[in-house]
Amino acid sequence: MIPVICFVGAKNAGKTTILENIIPVLSDRGYRVGTVKHDVHGFEMDKEGKDTWRHSRAGAGCVCISSPDKVAVIRSVDTEMDLAEIVTRYFWREDIILAEGFKGSHFPKVEVFRKEIEDSPVCSNPERDNLIAIFGDIPEGINVRHFGWKDIHPLVDFIEERYLKSRKAKAVSVLVDGKSLPMNDFVERIVGETIEGLLKSLRGWKNPDQVVISIKRGGK
Amino acid sequence: MIPVICFVGAKNAGKTTILENIIPVLSDRGYRVGTVKHDVHGFEMDKEGKDTWRHSRAGAGCVCISSPDKVAVIRSVDTEMDLAEIVTRYFWREDIILAEGFKGSHFPKVEVFRKEIEDSPVCSNPERDNLIAIFGDIPEGINVRHFGWKDIHPLVDFIEERYLKSRKAKAVSVLVDGKSLPMNDFVERIVGETIEGLLKSLRGWKNPDQVVISIKRGGK
Repeated sequence: MIPVICFVGAKNAGKTTILENIIPVLSDRGYRVGTVKHDVHGFEMDKEGKDTWRHSRAGAGCVCISSPDKVAVIRSVDTEMDLAEIVTRYFWREDIILAEGFKGSHFPKVEVFRKEIEDSPVCSNPERDNLIAIFGDIPEGINVRHFGWKDIHPLVDFIEERYLKSRKAKAVSVLVDGKSLPMNDFVERIVGETIEGLLKSLRGWKNPDQVVISIKRGGK
Repeated sequence: MIPVICFVGAKNAGKTTILENIIPVLSDRGYRVGTVKHDVHGFEMDKEGKDTWRHSRAGAGCVCISSPDKVAVIRSVDTEMDLAEIVTRYFWREDIILAEGFKGSHFPKVEVFRKEIEDSPVCSNPERDNLIAIFGDIPEGINVRHFGWKDIHPLVDFIEERYLKSRKAKAVSVLVDGKSLPMNDFVERIVGETIEGLLKSLRGWKNPDQVVISIKRGGK
């Protein structure tokens, strides 16, 4: 899977601002960045009266709009999609995904910590919370890599070294009914190579950068 | 692939209204409907100042927001995504996709025709345009199934009979660098069964309704 790093922290700690500062630095280094915002309250994206809004109101569970420079999709869900499913389904060109929130996920986290807002970090146990760094003020009693408020470049160096330079040439992910199928490196390689071996004799295969296979089973 | 039907016609012929009328009828019959709107001018979905808008402005090529009841994704593209890629990437739970526009696609089309707006249908050659029906006024000189302005239910019967009742139990689609790999039924079955055979011995496989495999090759 594409590497994912979650930026967590209290409300108003400055998560979006940090992302705004990190994204252009990663882009300048040639990485394609995707972002995912966790919204606990529910958002309004579509505008009343627009065609997609009318499709949705009529009962379409997923509406999409496509133009020459952008594609947008809004899907209704019964239960919140988990971050692994979001990343596997919606990101394919990206080299790294920066998420805002998702404190409960298993992905590595950078906490944006601002003492005037909170007494201690929301990730109090680095190992359990998969906390890889604190950005901002220095909390007491947490033994984890720290970056100060101006350390955008050092933080990007750290992320690049740890998640981007060692990237595997091939990354295979499998979603079954929206859940990631766990695979170790060996299994991942076998699965990827078997599927490639199967497909490469078909007309239309031209040594692609990216392959997506979707299998719909059953049906009513 | 999930069946796709494009509703085409002149501006203001009433395409969105027809979709608004068809969607609830399909839903009542138990089908999950997705829609895709073709926007030739460019749309604004995100709102200035919102976190996703800030991510996007900072340089993220794809931004997503996830809440307990909805997920939205906005992706920048260099060239317009084709409808087959949109359907394969973004729709998985749906039984049918109704598209608005996409006159140039190879998918079956229903033209919404209104005499007071245009003299003759935009799909003038049913065979070339894959025109399966005209909805609305009766055009001259086009030999294709016709439904009048009140014939929503008969149109849905026609679509159901032709695209939904004969649905295959299993549907496999493969995208290589965003383009659909053409497969006949035999190859589609071989590909689906080989991949299932490969994956079903892995822990986490529980006879799912839907499987997505994503392979990222190369990398920089």
